Formats: sequence, C-alpha cells, structure tokens
Amino acid sequence: MKDFTYYAPTEVAFGKSSEEEVARLVKKYDGHKVLVHYGGGSAVRSGLLDKICSLLEEGGLRTVLLGGVVPNPRLSKVHEGIALCRKEGVDFILSVGGGSVIDSAKAIACGVCYEGEVWDFYIGKADAQAYLPMGCVLTIPAAGSEMSDSSVITNEDGDLKIGYSNNLSRQKFAIMNPERTYTLPPYQTAAGVTDIMMHTMERYFSHDDDMSLTDAVAEAVLRTMKDCIFTVLKDPRDYRARAQIMWGGSLAHNDLTGCGTTGDWATHQLEHELSALFDATHGAGLAAVWPSWARYVYRENVGRFVRFAVNVMGVTNDYTDPEGTALKGIEAMERFYHSIGMPVNIPELIGRDITDAEIDEMVRKCSLDGTRAQGQFKVLTARDMQCIYRNAARR
Amino acid sequence: MKDFTYYAPTEVAFGKSSEEEVARLVKKYDGHKVLVHYGGGSAVRSGLLDKICSLLEEGGLRTVLLGGVVPNPRLSKVHEGIALCRKEGVDFILSVGGGSVIDSAKAIACGVCYEGEVWDFYIGKADAQAYLPMGCVLTIPAAGSEMSDSSVITNEDGDLKIGYSNNLSRQKFAIMNPERTYTLPPYQTAAGVTDIMMHTMERYFSHDDDMSLTDAVAEAVLRTMKDCIFTVLKDPRDYRARAQIMWGGSLAHNDLTGCGTTGDWATHQLEHELSALFDATHGAGLAAVWPSWARYVYRENVGRFVRFAVNVMGVTNDYTDPEGTALKGIEAMERFYHSIGMPVNIPELIGRDITDAEIDEMVRKCSLDGTRAQGQFKVLTARDMQCIYRNAARR
Repeated sequence: MKDFTYYAPTEVAFGKSSEEEVARLVKKYDGHKVLVHYGGGSAVRSGLLDKICSLLEEGGLRTVLLGGVVPNPRLSKVHEGIALCRKEGVDFILSVGGGSVIDSAKAIACGVCYEGEVWDFYIGKADAQAYLPMGCVLTIPAAGSEMSDSSVITNEDGDLKIGYSNNLSRQKFAIMNPERTYTLPPYQTAAGVTDIMMHTMERYFSHDDDMSLTDAVAEAVLRTMKDCIFTVLKDPRDYRARAQIMWGGSLAHNDLTGCGTTGDWATHQLEHELSALFDATHGAGLAAVWPSWARYVYRENVGRFVRFAVNVMGVTNDYTDPEGTALKGIEAMERFYHSIGMPVNIPELIGRDITDAEIDEMVRKCSLDGTRAQGQFKVLTARDMQCIYRNAARR
Repeated sequence: MKDFTYYAPTEVAFGKSSEEEVARLVKKYDGHKVLVHYGGGSAVRSGLLDKICSLLEEGGLRTVLLGGVVPNPRLSKVHEGIALCRKEGVDFILSVGGGSVIDSAKAIACGVCYEGEVWDFYIGKADAQAYLPMGCVLTIPAAGSEMSDSSVITNEDGDLKIGYSNNLSRQKFAIMNPERTYTLPPYQTAAGVTDIMMHTMERYFSHDDDMSLTDAVAEAVLRTMKDCIFTVLKDPRDYRARAQIMWGGSLAHNDLTGCGTTGDWATHQLEHELSALFDATHGAGLAAVWPSWARYVYRENVGRFVRFAVNVMGVTNDYTDPEGTALKGIEAMERFYHSIGMPVNIPELIGRDITDAEIDEMVRKCSLDGTRAQGQFKVLTARDMQCIYRNAARR
C-alpha cells in the first residue's frame, strides 16, 4: 500500500437552495471584485448567469464578466482573462459552468500571479506559487474540476492539450444545484458520467490493490453512476438521480477514490490527443479508447479486472476462468457504453475511419516524440500507444 | 433529499512515513510555539512523543508539553491547557493521541481565544469565533475527531458530558501511521471499530433515504470495518487491516457518510450518560445501547433496517417478511458485537445490573430534566429514553 496525502478543502454547498449562498461565500474567502467566468449558451439562456450576478451585486460585490470559454478550453482565452483581471484589479474568480470554465479559471488564477507565460506551468517549466482565490457554480457534472487540483488547457499553437496539477488551484467553494443539470442533453449527460466513472477507474486499476476501503468506496461510486445514468436518460428532471451524478462527479475526482493507490491515467492521456485533434467530447473519447486499453493491459493483473467485472459490472465470477471473467467485464462495459449512447471505438467517435497518419501524429504527441511513457498499470511506450490506437481504430 | 454542505479541509498525511512531515506541516499552518498535547501511557512508552518533539525541535519549533488527558476528557485539564497556552504564548496545538486528546485540544484552542468560560460553548451559552490552529498525530482510530468538527468534554462538576460542533475546530492536518495502532489492546481496538461504525450508522438511519451514493459509501465503510476487525484481532500487526480501520475512522466522521441525510445521534446521546456515570469506554457503551435503540425504533422505517440487514450484515432478504429481515439484521449486529468482545447490554458493559435510580438519573440528564428530546429517526422523549435504557438493562 502506498503512503498517501488526502486534501480536499473545497467547501461544498449542495442542493436546491445552494446558489443563494454565493455572495456570502465569495466574501468569506476575501473576494471583493469578482471575475465571473462562463462559457455561453446555457448559463446565459437559463438565466443562471443573471441570477448569480444579481446575487453578487446585492451582496455588495463588484463584478467583471468574461464569457466564451469553449470545451477543451483555449490558452488564448486564458491570456484574455489574465489581462482582464490585471486591468480591472480582480481579486476573486467565480466560474459559472462546467469543467472547461473551471479549468480556464484555474489557469487565469495562477497566470495573474505570475510574471512569466502561464503556459510554462503546463509544460513543466515552472511551478505556480500563488493563485487568486476561486469558487464555482457548477452546471455540468463530469470533469470533477470543482474539487480537483488539476486543469487541462489546449494551446491552439500545435493543438497541444496538457494538464497541470497544483493543490493551490483547489476551489474555495463549489455550489452545486442538481436542478441546473436538467437541461443537459443526453449525449453530454452520458459523456459526463463516462468521465466521472473513468476518473475513478483510472485510480482503481492499480497494482496497489490492497487498500480495500478505497476499492469499496470506488465501487460504490461506479455502481451508483451506472444506475443513475439510465434514470436521467429516461427522465432528465429526476432530481434524485441528477444529484447522485453531480455529487459523484466530485467524489470521483477529489482523490477520495485514489487513497493508497497509484493512478494509471493512460486512458486520459490517450484521449487528450483525440480531443485535441478532433475536438471530441472528452467523456466520449474516453469511452472510445478504454476498451482497447483494457484488452491490451488486463493480463498485467487479471485479478483486478475480475474484481471490476464482478463488483462493478455484475458479471458472475467464473472461478475456473479468471481471464474469461475479466474479459466479460470489459465486454459488459462496452455494452454499457453503447446503451447510454457512447462510442466504443474511434470510428464511432469521429464518424469516419481514422488514418494511419492521424494515429502516428497522436502517438508522437502523446509520447512527446517517443520520449515520454504513459500509464502505471502497464507502462506504455510509443509502440504500445500505437497498438492501442490501432485496436481502437477498428469498428 | 436534504440540501447539505460538505467541508472537510483537514490535510491528511497517511502511512509509514507520515510522521516525518510533522514540522513541515506545523510551519505550513503558521505554528511557531507548539503545545504538544497527549494522554500518557502508550505515546510515551512507544517513544512516539519523544520522536515528535525531536522532529519539531529539529524543525526549529519551540514546544511546551501538556500530558495527562484521560478518556472522557475533563474540563479541568482544558482549563489547565488554556492557562498554559496563555502563559507560554503558544500559537499552535499538536495532539498526539486519540479522540480524547484531540477533543481536549479543541476545547483548549477555543478557550484560549475567548475571554469567558470555555464551558459556555458546550452548554450553548456562546459560539466560538476563533481557535488556535491545531494538528494531530493520531494513535487511536475511533472517535474520528481528527477530521470532524466536534468535541466532547466531561465537566466533573455533575458528571456532565457534552459535545460541541464548530467548523473552526477542524484540524489543519492529521498524521496517521497505522503502525502506531499495532499495540492497541483488543478491547480498545474493537471499541474503536464499534465507534467508527456507529458514526456512520448514526447518519445512515435517516428518513432522508434517497441519497443512494451516500448510502453506498456508508455501506462500503461499514462492510470494510466489519471485515478488518477480525483480521486485526487475529494479527494485531496486520498493516493492511490496521490501515483500513484508521482511514475508516476518518471517513466515518468527516461527514462524507452523511451527505444529504439527517443524522440521528440518539445512541450517542444515550451512551454519553453511560460513560459519564460509569466511565465506560465510549465504543463499548454504544454497543451496549444500540440493539435496544434499534428494536425500539425500527418500525419507523422498516425498509431502512432491511437495507442495513442485507447490504451491511449480509442477511438474506426475505421479501415476504421485511420486519423479520430487519430484526435479523439487528440480531446479526449483536452476534458481531459479541464476536469482537463487545457487550450488547448494560450489565455486560458495567459488570453488574444497573439500578432503577441510575436509569432515572441518566434519563434526567439525557433529557435535561425532560426538556430535551433526542434523535431524528424517532424523536425520543424522556419516556422513550427510559424504555430503551430499561430494555438495555436486561441481560
């Protein structure tokens, strides 16, 4: 078992009345002039943005707005945010949206406090020492950025999509009202649940398989997400199921499900190249890659995949055939993905076959020209990445 | 489903090497002159106290020692600590021990920052506005005080044992090395696990029974504790099982297992009178009261007790007889308590029959002379408390 640290200081206000807390919470964490950061679309149309701005102003806070964050958030928007914060003397960033908005806010928050180029943090040239304080009003359960220490930014120069983790980037508070997720379309909802489950699965598939409490909690999260997605696809306004998914998104990525294990994260890394190249929805990209990853690596620890098959996917354990049971778990996951409208390979994700040249480009970037391995459950070389992408390229 | 807040900011350093972090962590949270607070006995004998003091001093920190905290920690010791902190200019309190030591530290930490009498907070006359920062080196997994917002202090004048909750009392950090629990005697280990499980059960038995993720996590904690206690009773030096219990103690009481539910806490309140009157071990007292509480209240929500019986205790669900299944769950819990050396009634706890006068005194104090009800699953009047104590008085 690995020694671990666990640090999840974000104050969560969860429920139908949680938005009413926004001004009190910003003031509690020393905000006076607030950058309200958002994407566009639904936060505006639903009236949420107006409501939040009104609540802040009624609470005596000044606001500056910056919208237009897109999925796979762009470095150019981060630069715009940094300049705006400096010009306006912003001392708090409030995100209204999902993971892309919060990730963009994290990059702005450290960029404001740094004299150099913020991209330095993402390419490992520097480590951020300070952040503006941040909070969020979450509208999309998926990325888990509301309680995590990480953010992922896409640099349009070269389509580079890179993550960066720093404990200082944790949100001071997260406001979560499940009603705000009622209008999420089925595809986004399913992709979100896929991302949530994958955050837990990346931690679960570990050779440190002796932390039984962490495993039991992880399985509880996975089974609950698996149940609830069918309920919300049937009835998008089911508060109870929406609430489990929203809270599950936070628990899946606030490190709770990884205490004592070594995360793998290869599927995430392989997917980053897909969404950078094709601007695919992250959760759907994960579903398109995972089955190929799983079949490529399961022999590294068959027992782990058996446990997943039995405890998460409900496969009957054939004690005479562990490998067969493990494979049935992967097949069950594919059926689950299809049943919620997710792809299980790259052609299903992008709507056409992928070319060898595109695979080679993804391998090149994912391996940093062959200099970087990925994963822990099985350490993947550039050659392994190519095999997994090729397997995922088959219909 | 209830709206909820979740706030568990304590930085946890967990594992064999965690103690080495102590000086760094105290300095991170602005400590310079540290009150090292402990009980006696094992922390001294094991050399842990010496090690921690050496690490602090090597880290350039000054230390003041205050030992002698007893189980069911006393207000007189709290007063002694407040006076010492003021005299010495202490700016950080580090507890080395279990829940009693940490609870005592919490009372000292708010007492130092308050001009009035610290007991005011416990009797509801005032609310603490400031605490000295605190951290802990945990040696007994049980009370969960290392991540909770609460503390329980016994005022020797009148044997009053009262709890007080305040978010400001959360530890800045908690250092947890499971090896430090190897020497805990079997009775203390079992009582600790009983306390841990009860912290989750107090939250689990709720009429807000629609938060399925919280329920699934709670059941994961309960089942894991139930498995691991047998392993450590057989082999006290089993690191893996000790680690699950230690981490389980924190997760059971950092509010994770209560997100969206209304806690009951009647068993804890009924037990407080037992340990105040007989100085009983808290966990053992809980085991002595719970079966009588459960049989008295289960009809309020039979389905909840069925779920507990099936998902936690492994009882086969007899769908034709929910009440029978619920009762089998309570019986299974009694067998579990006996199998780990815990009592299931008051005579087994105190080694003799309890008198009617003693019961009347406990009812009087638990109900504040008939003016205070207890519990949520079933709201208990003084008359209900008397019935439960009387049922628990039978061998």
